[in-house]
Amino acid sequence: MENIFTDEYFMKKALNEAEIAFEKGEIPVGAIIVVNDTVIARSHNLTELLNDVTAHAEMQTITAAANYLGGKYLTGCTLYVTLEPCQMCAGALYWSQISKIVFGARDENRGFEKMGTQLHPKTIVKRGVMAEEASDLMKRFFAEKRK
Amino acid sequence: MENIFTDEYFMKKALNEAEIAFEKGEIPVGAIIVVNDTVIARSHNLTELLNDVTAHAEMQTITAAANYLGGKYLTGCTLYVTLEPCQMCAGALYWSQISKIVFGARDENRGFEKMGTQLHPKTIVKRGVMAEEASDLMKRFFAEKRK
Repeated sequence: MENIFTDEYFMKKALNEAEIAFEKGEIPVGAIIVVNDTVIARSHNLTELLNDVTAHAEMQTITAAANYLGGKYLTGCTLYVTLEPCQMCAGALYWSQISKIVFGARDENRGFEKMGTQLHPKTIVKRGVMAEEASDLMKRFFAEKRK
Repeated sequence: MENIFTDEYFMKKALNEAEIAFEKGEIPVGAIIVVNDTVIARSHNLTELLNDVTAHAEMQTITAAANYLGGKYLTGCTLYVTLEPCQMCAGALYWSQISKIVFGARDENRGFEKMGTQLHPKTIVKRGVMAEEASDLMKRFFAEKRK
């Protein structure tokens, strides 16, 4: 039987979180954390609602996943996030020792890869999963903002 | 009259927070945020208690200061922190647009300056304020851990 738990399967769930952010007027970024094909944390950007620059989707899922697991390290976990993490989120992921990061659209200005943020040496990165969908959502958000 | 509100005056308050962390068995790092010579946020590292890699002293003070100010940007604020911030905290400080960062001891392994994390172009950095006191506290902490 075909494995339904593909990266696209989980990224759709992260995109769903990004859409919820969009509806709230937040920059539409969503994230989930998965361990053994089970979603253990889901969130979306809440920087406007919380008036807090640290309330990125990834930060919230890192805290929630650690809470679920009862330990602060996310070894064995995979983060799915619609946009490439920033320096702050990549720095948090470094400390978490997360096993895998899958992101959608690249953030050419403030993404961690361009900014040179270091991940934990054991962390694997996969790029560009459903990037177009994530990028379209961002473009639609900023087009509406400019109206 | 002499101005009592020196960098040392405020760093002592951050060191006091670090000592509270020490007593709780947390890596002893403390931070405060000051605006117009008034402390608007104070915290210390709580990664063990909260089981959360994101619970660094700086992250908590950024959130608390934004909450106090009713806005997410920390323009006009100064962060005093006993240890050089890491990538995550420097990344959060980048988003916050904080005006000044004063740190005590350098973190030669995981400090943001060695790791190459970018701050906001308007942020000023002052290094080495009461560095010896901050460093001694860290050394004492790890010496006790090894016992």
